Amino acid sequence: MGYTEKDWLAINTIRVLAADATFHSNSGHPGAPMGMAPVAHVLFNKFMKFNPKNPKWLNRDRFVLSNGHGCMLQYALLHLFGYELSIDDLKAFRTVDSITPGHPEAHDTPGIEVTTGPLGQGISNAVGLAIAQAHTAATFNKDAFPLVDNYTYCFLGDGCLMEGVASEACSLAGHLQLGNLIAVWDDNHISIDGDTNVAFTEDVRKRYEAYGWHVVTVDDGDHDLDGIEAAIQACKEATDKPSIIALRTTIGFGSKQQGTHGVHGSPLKADDIKQLKEKFGFNPEESFAVPQDVYDAYHKHAAEGAAAEEEWNKLFAKYAEAYPQEAADLSRRLKGDLPEGWEKNLPVYTPSDAAVASRKLSETVLSKIEAALPELLGGSADLTGSNLTRWKSAVDFQPPSTGLGDYAGRYVRYGVREHGMGAIMNGLAAYGTILPYSGTFLNFVSYAAGAVRLSALSQVRVIWVATHDSIGLGEDGPTHQPIETLAHFRALPNCMVWRPADGNETSASYYVALTSKHTPSIIALSRQNLPQLEGSIIEKGIKGGYVLHEVENADITLVSTGSEVCICIDAVKYLAENHNIKARVVSMPCFEVFDAQPQEYRLSVLPDGIPSLSVEVMSTMGWERYTHEQFGLNRFGASGAYKDVYKKFEFTPEGIAKRAVATVDFWKDVPNIRSPLNRAFKQLI
Amino acid sequence: MGYTEKDWLAINTIRVLAADATFHSNSGHPGAPMGMAPVAHVLFNKFMKFNPKNPKWLNRDRFVLSNGHGCMLQYALLHLFGYELSIDDLKAFRTVDSITPGHPEAHDTPGIEVTTGPLGQGISNAVGLAIAQAHTAATFNKDAFPLVDNYTYCFLGDGCLMEGVASEACSLAGHLQLGNLIAVWDDNHISIDGDTNVAFTEDVRKRYEAYGWHVVTVDDGDHDLDGIEAAIQACKEATDKPSIIALRTTIGFGSKQQGTHGVHGSPLKADDIKQLKEKFGFNPEESFAVPQDVYDAYHKHAAEGAAAEEEWNKLFAKYAEAYPQEAADLSRRLKGDLPEGWEKNLPVYTPSDAAVASRKLSETVLSKIEAALPELLGGSADLTGSNLTRWKSAVDFQPPSTGLGDYAGRYVRYGVREHGMGAIMNGLAAYGTILPYSGTFLNFVSYAAGAVRLSALSQVRVIWVATHDSIGLGEDGPTHQPIETLAHFRALPNCMVWRPADGNETSASYYVALTSKHTPSIIALSRQNLPQLEGSIIEKGIKGGYVLHEVENADITLVSTGSEVCICIDAVKYLAENHNIKARVVSMPCFEVFDAQPQEYRLSVLPDGIPSLSVEVMSTMGWERYTHEQFGLNRFGASGAYKDVYKKFEFTPEGIAKRAVATVDFWKDVPNIRSPLNRAFKQLI
Repeated sequence: MGYTEKDWLAINTIRVLAADATFHSNSGHPGAPMGMAPVAHVLFNKFMKFNPKNPKWLNRDRFVLSNGHGCMLQYALLHLFGYELSIDDLKAFRTVDSITPGHPEAHDTPGIEVTTGPLGQGISNAVGLAIAQAHTAATFNKDAFPLVDNYTYCFLGDGCLMEGVASEACSLAGHLQLGNLIAVWDDNHISIDGDTNVAFTEDVRKRYEAYGWHVVTVDDGDHDLDGIEAAIQACKEATDKPSIIALRTTIGFGSKQQGTHGVHGSPLKADDIKQLKEKFGFNPEESFAVPQDVYDAYHKHAAEGAAAEEEWNKLFAKYAEAYPQEAADLSRRLKGDLPEGWEKNLPVYTPSDAAVASRKLSETVLSKIEAALPELLGGSADLTGSNLTRWKSAVDFQPPSTGLGDYAGRYVRYGVREHGMGAIMNGLAAYGTILPYSGTFLNFVSYAAGAVRLSALSQVRVIWVATHDSIGLGEDGPTHQPIETLAHFRALPNCMVWRPADGNETSASYYVALTSKHTPSIIALSRQNLPQLEGSIIEKGIKGGYVLHEVENADITLVSTGSEVCICIDAVKYLAENHNIKARVVSMPCFEVFDAQPQEYRLSVLPDGIPSLSVEVMSTMGWERYTHEQFGLNRFGASGAYKDVYKKFEFTPEGIAKRAVATVDFWKDVPNIRSPLNRAFKQLI
Repeated sequence: MGYTEKDWLAINTIRVLAADATFHSNSGHPGAPMGMAPVAHVLFNKFMKFNPKNPKWLNRDRFVLSNGHGCMLQYALLHLFGYELSIDDLKAFRTVDSITPGHPEAHDTPGIEVTTGPLGQGISNAVGLAIAQAHTAATFNKDAFPLVDNYTYCFLGDGCLMEGVASEACSLAGHLQLGNLIAVWDDNHISIDGDTNVAFTEDVRKRYEAYGWHVVTVDDGDHDLDGIEAAIQACKEATDKPSIIALRTTIGFGSKQQGTHGVHGSPLKADDIKQLKEKFGFNPEESFAVPQDVYDAYHKHAAEGAAAEEEWNKLFAKYAEAYPQEAADLSRRLKGDLPEGWEKNLPVYTPSDAAVASRKLSETVLSKIEAALPELLGGSADLTGSNLTRWKSAVDFQPPSTGLGDYAGRYVRYGVREHGMGAIMNGLAAYGTILPYSGTFLNFVSYAAGAVRLSALSQVRVIWVATHDSIGLGEDGPTHQPIETLAHFRALPNCMVWRPADGNETSASYYVALTSKHTPSIIALSRQNLPQLEGSIIEKGIKGGYVLHEVENADITLVSTGSEVCICIDAVKYLAENHNIKARVVSMPCFEVFDAQPQEYRLSVLPDGIPSLSVEVMSTMGWERYTHEQFGLNRFGASGAYKDVYKKFEFTPEGIAKRAVATVDFWKDVPNIRSPLNRAFKQLI
């Protein structure tokens, strides 16, 4: 309340900066920043608590720009408040190697919490950030020590509301009663195709009420700063529901084209910017000009945030005296480090141990390590009993009022919402205190491809427990049997795809996944039982690929993953007995990790002078990088008992042997066979 | 109304068949079929119009089982009504090569309209089927000739309702006022994780009202056949809205475990089946027993359907007299054939034609062929102006009341709903009269991965116009620049991924995509301008790969796609001038189509005796199958003007030449270089 001309000067400064930057780079989206400048000004100055000098302060309020194309809004705010983002950075908007790329990227730009732009992701990340806050508060707060009480604010547009991933996450947020989450819908009636009435005429308010959200409307988001403030305040007071403010705005406010899709994704014309600056009292001859009054006002708020952090640091120091163990745990988590010795809990197997499905081996890992790693927060997209993602004594993360769990609970019932789950995990990981993992069938990780891609790009540590990883799932049939999935995610940069062959490799997969601070992992696990292999040890598994079975003067190397490794071992025997062929076996549970090993080691695993054959019951794509010949499945699978399905496609010792014989024969006249690992030049990475 | 014991006998027969089949195969989901048997009985006998002897009759009512795991319900119905699905087929449930796989597959089983099981897809397919009906009716129906007036019915469960893809499709269905769509929600309160209250407590009815649907509730779906009938009747009468019936049922009705998730995904125990049969008056010693009365009743309804088709055939014969051109068009469409000579409309270019972005070339193709191919129904996920998917004179597919178009319109405004769009296209294609295509950025086809997979598996002809296909999109940056996407879909069986290099190749891409009746296509198109290449002609392009630039005694083959082909051509000159290296160039717009060519042809393109280097600005995965060395981008891109981004990553004539030199050098000592196309054995396909 009590807004003055100074406030409007700041608001118009943001608008002009957005117009200048997009004009300067001849690219970008001025419309959303110009329309949302008023709410941003009110939110950041009247409500948000943050310290630009330490963008990682734990108890800061989180802000997510789900309509990430409007990033000039966020960049302008970061600059005005004094984050490490200069006016030159604004001038470098959308140029190569700048910290102001076309959409906000969390790993590059201080003050950006999550990477947004692909629509629907940001609001779903915000749900994750809100879950993380609730969980961290329930875990660490004590009487008189409200260590963590931040809010998560999220701006989103019509596009985000249309995306299914947002529907999934918001439905869950309502169920979870996340009162710490406040979203602002930029209800500007415009999307790229023009007026939203061409495709989007649902009653958004009613839908969010149906999800269990608190819904507020502000009719004039262009002028009514008091109304905006009152709305946000009302949302903060609704503590048992997430809130959404339907904020009616004019896209590109101030432009001659305001209110049309002409200002959505293209810079304003020069004469339009001129009239804009004149209208707002700016010198039309100047660009990137910020009135000192605006800097002063924003820096004042930033200083209040710095002071708030100082207070918080004192509170935390006292907390550390009263609760030294909790304080140490929290500090450790924030660094991303795991507790010393945690890995001693990883189960180790010998060949005499029973054959077990790797999904079950995964359950054992989780059950053994969860006590040592309290930051683990698990879940499943309604396949808990199939993914085996829940340790027995786990408490569900649920609103206490449901009687089904509490916010300190470490297991999330995501419902059948794979994409939402993936995007929520990205938010959980971004909060700083949580290491999220979740389960679904490997085939349905594809539903979440948009979120997995952003895990990789934004370099967060999330783990997918991807069970039922092949035709080996059997009867559910081709609709559920992955063929292309591993190739897909192996082709995604900065994503580790694991397919362990037995218990020790499963432990190895988790070891690397959990200790890789900046990389997501997908662990593909079998439904069917797998024997514990002779020669498999964790220390080898963590190299991503290793010699499982060595033999002198081998005729061929069989290279395999997961459930096919043990069949290869049987094929070795079959080849020796029936074809007098000596085969060595390489297990290659993770391409990406193997690729990171020294070339000398890699060539010891896949050496020159010997032909190689890969065996994996799915697309052969990508295997040509490692082996000379490939036995796989470049077609859809079949519904039936898994042994029948394997037999149909000849993934049997005999079927492998047949192809091994063909491989040896085909390569026998080639002198000096080169390992495919030898390359003419290095790849760009 | 007027239901008797005979009806209950039929209902219980379905329940017992579901219990028997899942028990017999020791796998599957008895719960949903047992709970939904009453509504299925009423719907199929009192409302649905179909002829089991001709499952392809155009004006049949469509039925979609979105909760596809309950497929024993559908298989039982198909059997009882006399489709080509015997009692032995039911006994072969979930066994290899049966027509009764673990989830319904449209291409294998007569009477199955679309392939379901992956949750949320079926209801979205149903939206597509309903759009198709509305469009076909608006296009072909005439006064006194209601050729097409069928309904689309869809059963779905809680899981489908939680999936974002369903939210997207249902929001659009409400906007489109599809009164011909009637969904039945199996509101049984159970999902795999147990009671739905652990994750799904939203007000579904209110949400669907918010979407603009007509919502009806039936409180006792286990017993109230009259109520079910009245509800369906009320939905049929709501002609300006899609309808959903919230049907409260008991999962696994009749089992000792009814109402629990114990009956969801596992067969009943022997003693449970025994009591079930006794309770329902069946002989507990018999399995797969169908009372003759049930056959008689169901066959009677089937005969009515056959008679209805006969009447329809007469109507159509009269229609053909009155409207011979329309009748011929409709008959042709139903065969999936294109009109003779349509391909003459494909634009042809010469090297002197201007450089044009391939997304623009795609627009030209669509504009030139749309009149010849009236079955083309286009759209975009809110990127019309970027994807260039709409020809100038197109009319939008919209409810006439909106004033924005009509149901005869051939352009759908999908909104920002990529996954829904993909699943809707699968339904559109399945209807039989439509050839759907739609646009989004290539990167966001990944959002629809679940639907694309089912396009491929169910063998439907749909086309993705996937623009902004690489780092060449420039300023939008890494969040929008595909790296893994082509590898992903190239690894998907039965999916053609095209990346044309110029105008003639764009025409070739469309030619093959449009004439491939049983295969979906993704056409990746540039944002930036591309020159018209010397040596590119449609006849070569349709082979998927061909020699664009030949040279005698070449030192190296450069193999490339799309926007990098013209840079390779420049690299040829650079190599000749600076390194005295002779390079030939192969353009490879589509792996899958190239793979289908005779080996002799393939080896003429990628011959023995010469090293090869692929050049593509994305993941190199998969290229090892065709070339000896690969220049690609196994990392994320960058935000900036596209020329700067290409330069940063060295995709320039100099950068390519550097790697070509390294390749020639690396392979110079290898005698008898083998083309990678030579393989030791054939792949399973």
